[in-house]
Amino acid sequence: MYSESVQKLIKEFEKFPGIGHKTAVRLAFYVLEADDKFAKEISDAIIQAKSKVKFCSKCFNLTDTDPCEICSNPKRDKELICVVEDVKDVVAMEKTHEFKGQYHVLHGAISPMNNISASDIKIKELITRLSDNSINEVIIATNPTIEGEATAMYISRLLKPLGVKVTRIAHGIPVGGDLEYTDEITLIKALEGRREM
Amino acid sequence: MYSESVQKLIKEFEKFPGIGHKTAVRLAFYVLEADDKFAKEISDAIIQAKSKVKFCSKCFNLTDTDPCEICSNPKRDKELICVVEDVKDVVAMEKTHEFKGQYHVLHGAISPMNNISASDIKIKELITRLSDNSINEVIIATNPTIEGEATAMYISRLLKPLGVKVTRIAHGIPVGGDLEYTDEITLIKALEGRREM
Repeated sequence: MYSESVQKLIKEFEKFPGIGHKTAVRLAFYVLEADDKFAKEISDAIIQAKSKVKFCSKCFNLTDTDPCEICSNPKRDKELICVVEDVKDVVAMEKTHEFKGQYHVLHGAISPMNNISASDIKIKELITRLSDNSINEVIIATNPTIEGEATAMYISRLLKPLGVKVTRIAHGIPVGGDLEYTDEITLIKALEGRREM
Repeated sequence: MYSESVQKLIKEFEKFPGIGHKTAVRLAFYVLEADDKFAKEISDAIIQAKSKVKFCSKCFNLTDTDPCEICSNPKRDKELICVVEDVKDVVAMEKTHEFKGQYHVLHGAISPMNNISASDIKIKELITRLSDNSINEVIIATNPTIEGEATAMYISRLLKPLGVKVTRIAHGIPVGGDLEYTDEITLIKALEGRREM
């Protein structure tokens, strides 16, 4: 129905997850109606990001420079590593402005159901980072899902014999949450993790 | 939080209408995680569409070739023009496979509230197309909104003195609709447009 190059553009947008036909049409028309500058800027940004961005060789976060800004920042605690599943989890952590250590991005969690084993994620690389005995504590901040918990367990069993302190972030009722609407597993975790006042 | 080129990519996606920060992050990560081919294809599609697509000099539909495929199709009725507000309306019409005439895309509707007057949309160009008396009928298919109705009225007053038949698409209860949930204005239109059985 649309002209060939418009159809092609719509098809490309449809490849994105969660973008259906109608949204793809809307995006394509926005490109067509916007000035030439926008088309150039977004296509440059795509190509640039794709060519410049790589994984930090230390923590496997996404970065333009290697090592990444966090790994090379002298103000950050070199003795503390927070292990997360995903690059987006680093951003979530950084938003708190509380954590001042390093990160280690696993790029996934152990999941036999999806054929992801320990060797498919960056666990080996984490062990390598611990080999010079410079790390005091490893905080495991994988998600509180079955896969995340299994990964946390696996890593803690690997690290404890190395004499490093291994901790897990707390699970419980989120701030502003409601006991009435909290699921049983979270409530059990909240009870287990209770602290003296 | 993200590296510079990732941030730039997210910002570009945020420029799209209806794309918030979270969706922009999701789209940017899809680009980063997809293969290089996708990045090249989508940026090429954007640049190509922007440079190739133009308005048909006859009907002002979007097209890669001038005149557009519909205008240059010898099988289509050259004596019948359907006037629509927008390029997307052409696609909606074409999907019916019923209309076999030409189109004329106004690129908007008269709207004093938004400072859009008759001279801002392609009405002048419609009159020009009628000047050689080759057109038998003009079907006005602007939207049934205040602006669309005003535009339909304006065009019909302009065209009638030229001796051309001017019709308006029917408004009424949509097929599968329910009288109980139909608004008053639509019901009034449905009554006005009643036909003998």
